[in-house]
Amino acid sequence: MKEEIKRSSANCNARTDLALEVRESFEEDNVEVSGVVLEEDYVQDKDIKITRVIIKDEHGQAAMGKPIGTYITIEAPRLQEDDETYHEPLTDEIVKYIKELLGEDKEGEVLIAGLGNREVTPDALGPKVVDNLFVTRHLIREYGEEFKKKNQMESMSAIAPGVMGQTGMETSEILKGIIKQTKPKCLIAIDALAARSVSRLNTTIQITDTGISPGSGVGNHRNALNEECLGVKVIAIGVPTVVDGATIVNDTLERFLDGKGFSEEEMYKFMEEVREKMVCNMFVTPKGIDDAVKRISYTISEALNQCFCQTI
Amino acid sequence: MKEEIKRSSANCNARTDLALEVRESFEEDNVEVSGVVLEEDYVQDKDIKITRVIIKDEHGQAAMGKPIGTYITIEAPRLQEDDETYHEPLTDEIVKYIKELLGEDKEGEVLIAGLGNREVTPDALGPKVVDNLFVTRHLIREYGEEFKKKNQMESMSAIAPGVMGQTGMETSEILKGIIKQTKPKCLIAIDALAARSVSRLNTTIQITDTGISPGSGVGNHRNALNEECLGVKVIAIGVPTVVDGATIVNDTLERFLDGKGFSEEEMYKFMEEVREKMVCNMFVTPKGIDDAVKRISYTISEALNQCFCQTI
Amino acid sequence: MKEEIKRSSANCNARTDLALEVRESFEEDNVEVSGVVLEEDYVQDKDIKITRVIIKDEHGQAAMGKPIGTYITIEAPRLQEDDETYHEPLTDEIVKYIKELLGEDKEGEVLIAGLGNREVTPDALGPKVVDNLFVTRHLIREYGEEFKKKNQMESMSAIAPGVMGQTGMETSEILKGIIKQTKPKCLIAIDALAARSVSRLNTTIQITDTGISPGSGVGNHRNALNEECLGVKVIAIGVPTVVDGATIVNDTLERFLDGKGFSEEEMYKFMEEVREKMVCNMFVTPKGIDDAVKRISYTISEALNQCFCQTI
Amino acid sequence: MKEEIKRSSANCNARTDLALEVRESFEEDNVEVSGVVLEEDYVQDKDIKITRVIIKDEHGQAAMGKPIGTYITIEAPRLQEDDETYHEPLTDEIVKYIKELLGEDKEGEVLIAGLGNREVTPDALGPKVVDNLFVTRHLIREYGEEFKKKNQMESMSAIAPGVMGQTGMETSEILKGIIKQTKPKCLIAIDALAARSVSRLNTTIQITDTGISPGSGVGNHRNALNEECLGVKVIAIGVPTVVDGATIVNDTLERFLDGKGFSEEEMYKFMEEVREKMVCNMFVTPKGIDDAVKRISYTISEALNQCFCQTI
Repeated sequence: MKEEIKRSSANCNARTDLALEVRESFEEDNVEVSGVVLEEDYVQDKDIKITRVIIKDEHGQAAMGKPIGTYITIEAPRLQEDDETYHEPLTDEIVKYIKELLGEDKEGEVLIAGLGNREVTPDALGPKVVDNLFVTRHLIREYGEEFKKKNQMESMSAIAPGVMGQTGMETSEILKGIIKQTKPKCLIAIDALAARSVSRLNTTIQITDTGISPGSGVGNHRNALNEECLGVKVIAIGVPTVVDGATIVNDTLERFLDGKGFSEEEMYKFMEEVREKMVCNMFVTPKGIDDAVKRISYTISEALNQCFCQTI
Repeated sequence: MKEEIKRSSANCNARTDLALEVRESFEEDNVEVSGVVLEEDYVQDKDIKITRVIIKDEHGQAAMGKPIGTYITIEAPRLQEDDETYHEPLTDEIVKYIKELLGEDKEGEVLIAGLGNREVTPDALGPKVVDNLFVTRHLIREYGEEFKKKNQMESMSAIAPGVMGQTGMETSEILKGIIKQTKPKCLIAIDALAARSVSRLNTTIQITDTGISPGSGVGNHRNALNEECLGVKVIAIGVPTVVDGATIVNDTLERFLDGKGFSEEEMYKFMEEVREKMVCNMFVTPKGIDDAVKRISYTISEALNQCFCQTI
Repeated sequence: MKEEIKRSSANCNARTDLALEVRESFEEDNVEVSGVVLEEDYVQDKDIKITRVIIKDEHGQAAMGKPIGTYITIEAPRLQEDDETYHEPLTDEIVKYIKELLGEDKEGEVLIAGLGNREVTPDALGPKVVDNLFVTRHLIREYGEEFKKKNQMESMSAIAPGVMGQTGMETSEILKGIIKQTKPKCLIAIDALAARSVSRLNTTIQITDTGISPGSGVGNHRNALNEECLGVKVIAIGVPTVVDGATIVNDTLERFLDGKGFSEEEMYKFMEEVREKMVCNMFVTPKGIDDAVKRISYTISEALNQCFCQTI
Repeated sequence: MKEEIKRSSANCNARTDLALEVRESFEEDNVEVSGVVLEEDYVQDKDIKITRVIIKDEHGQAAMGKPIGTYITIEAPRLQEDDETYHEPLTDEIVKYIKELLGEDKEGEVLIAGLGNREVTPDALGPKVVDNLFVTRHLIREYGEEFKKKNQMESMSAIAPGVMGQTGMETSEILKGIIKQTKPKCLIAIDALAARSVSRLNTTIQITDTGISPGSGVGNHRNALNEECLGVKVIAIGVPTVVDGATIVNDTLERFLDGKGFSEEEMYKFMEEVREKMVCNMFVTPKGIDDAVKRISYTISEALNQCFCQTI
């Protein structure tokens, strides 16, 4: 049954941007997924869990519906709380994994892109991260290598390009143009994500070296933000802040109906109806989303600032 | 069955702020509700429908779960579109009904309160309306009666007090204090509402002379914004911009399960679970909510400006 | 000569909100001002200077053109820089002096008012401080004394009422109403100030127990924010972010012309012309004012949060 | 004398972005400037004056310190007032002159760039114009030529790239990249300007086909926004919202001292002092700048929307 529903979900908008959630959906069935490696880690004495999902080959890619690459998920239940003693070790973790995924590219110019719509609270995460960055590219250009070394900084530039409804352009077009012109060594894209489970909202950070693939997630998309399309390494940092409207109804219903004897067809038909009539183009978000996005954006800005400037 | 579920909904957060939706829930059963009058009207050649729900007595109040008074609902499917030829007659309707509900109080000082949280897009309607008001109270105080008559204006003041999480105070406390000090003849409160049906979002304006009663909606609440508590007439103008998370799941489920033979108890138990685990403190809102709120706030500001200043 | 010009300045808009600057204007003439005490202090190893101007009696009040009371000025040249190791001791100083001026009123409910216009960058300091406060009044009302003691907090509420051009009401009317209704033990008003000297901008914090007196500054004004008018102790925290347009021209001219043999009358006439034709209702502010206001508002919010909640 | 001072002004920040003001500075001396044509026009019955300054050759360019091209200045004293009957004919004028300067390029894709810093009120004009644009490029790409013809629209895209302090990149780099990638036929850049005279603020619109040349204004600058650098026609629409701090002091002083017998050297030295010690990196702006920028940005957005979509 689940096969059917999940497929239909993928076709519509019902979805998760978290590799971890995709992987978990298999666990329910105790399936070992070929081509997918799962590793877990914890930050001692802190309520922080790290899960690394590595999609190693095309088997894994097909099963997961996500591109080959490494997906690091930091589960931090207290991410939206205002407690410096929690955010400091958390920031260290984010820095560590950004550097790990950057590999040897961690030296060289970096462009940060704060994706999303500044005017919609749960989608404003990316733009808000950019608001608090300490950009240095223009300073290094003005004051030279000496200045850069003295401050132990890498060149950082940043942009919050807005969304297609505001610009009339694909984000990928804007970023591709800027990258060709300013030639950073890598792009780090910050984006608000959609999760499948409400409990993930504002508690989870995903860092991946696969970039961002709009829509179903795999394939050579014209509008993807990845190395293939942009010509530079792309790290994506995402935090789920919304659940898709269709997803939440589907999942609730699925749980309720499980084992109650409805036919696949009956449920599929209903799901279609839900999506068409009611909840497509809707999103679900928590009531305190403004404070959560503000708090989380500080932490990610802080991590990026530390990552590329030692003396800040 | 519905009784049971609806009661439980009322106890939790699942709810509608629209009297029209409450009234409609009875229609499904073809019930004539004692103490409640329903009148319909249309704006010629425009896609605008007016429904007047009048709760006349305590019978009506008890049945509807809303205070005695008049609830005018303007259904304007194109409310969020950017078409002046639609918004002009719509503005005229809003002006007409505000004046009708004000009655003889339409002359005299008015205080406009833009309720809600400016930082959360669908809740920012009230503050955004205030942003575009042409306040005149201080001008009339400075330039005198002559100036007021020449411009055919009534004194208008305005405030966007923020929400309790920002101020630590009940909105009713703030407004009661300001009203006692500045002595307006009436208060007009603008607020984003929760609807039961997604199709109501950003397409419906409710204007009522009952003010705003938080929570279950009836009774002498300490924190209500109504004439009884504030000592001046209160007109509330509301536009549904969100559906409560619990509501949308309940309603979807109800429709799906209707006639499929589940016991009330079975469903009630599940609803409880949904509310507790998953969707309480969540809201559902459309993806283009930023443009919708901007557009609608202009129209309401325009109506208020016209209402209290003829020469604008 | 200076007498004449200064008098004329006072009549127009040319002015300083800083008691320290008023006091300094006498120093140029090496005058000891009767009824005014001046004390200086330094924070060891930090580039922070504290000056305490105490206006003790009516002599002092008349000479200074400011009400009787204590004016603590913290000069912190690095106030707008993003350096935690500087802002931490600075925050401690702010906390210390707020507590000193509160005296025995430091226990009991406090209302914070963030004055100014959120839409004008250098005037947004007050509203931005409120944005980052941890208000607790509603929490204490919900969770009780136990909760309050456990968290070692005092009740804090906050409001950013906007300016008269937005509300049509005097700020004093709004605050008087809210104070009567919610009965705090004291008001702390945060406001952007006007300085006489450009070098004061974004580098100086004034904390005073005299509140805020609009206009010329002394006397029983209907619209003052002080204990006499509001009935509760009023602490004002101000940071100069603008110089008045007329002031800057006057001062420049004065310095240039000093000793060049112009008659008082000649200069007075010119000043009048400048004020009328050109620079009245103008303000002068630095180009990086957005970053400065953001940074400074964090520090003041932090100080207030620490002041009224030990466990934050 | 003026030569000396003006030269020094150009070297520092004291400046005007308005060709009209440069031209006027010659008028004082009744000079006919070779290579510069001046034409005036009025909108009947409306308080709107149009001045066309055409810099025809290198003589004119050298004299004016502005590139060869056409500078249309619309003087609209009521530009910041909220009166639709004034803004409608004004919008028509803006549309007319944009189309005139576009010439045959008025058909084809256009990119609008809202320059400036959204966080600094008088600099937010460009970003605010973009906020109210009806972008269509993505719609035409999705719905095709039919849709475009039916709506009589040209393809419009838009971006508010932010300023170098926020992005670390030159605006010209960002726009050059986007233009290469998305290939519009022309760029229209909206920017807040600096005027020499306070009376120009928020009352004047300059439309030019020379683009924007940072700094002294003439020459092949790496960072200019003009056809030479960007490869597409560039129309710049600017509204003065600030006066440079140094300019205002210089001009005031000049007027005062004119004919009072100071030596050029004496004044030059003083000006230097002013610039260094006091007012460099300061700007002067009117107190109601928030309302002015909001109002003016609506009018420019409206003009652009009308220009590129007939059916809006």
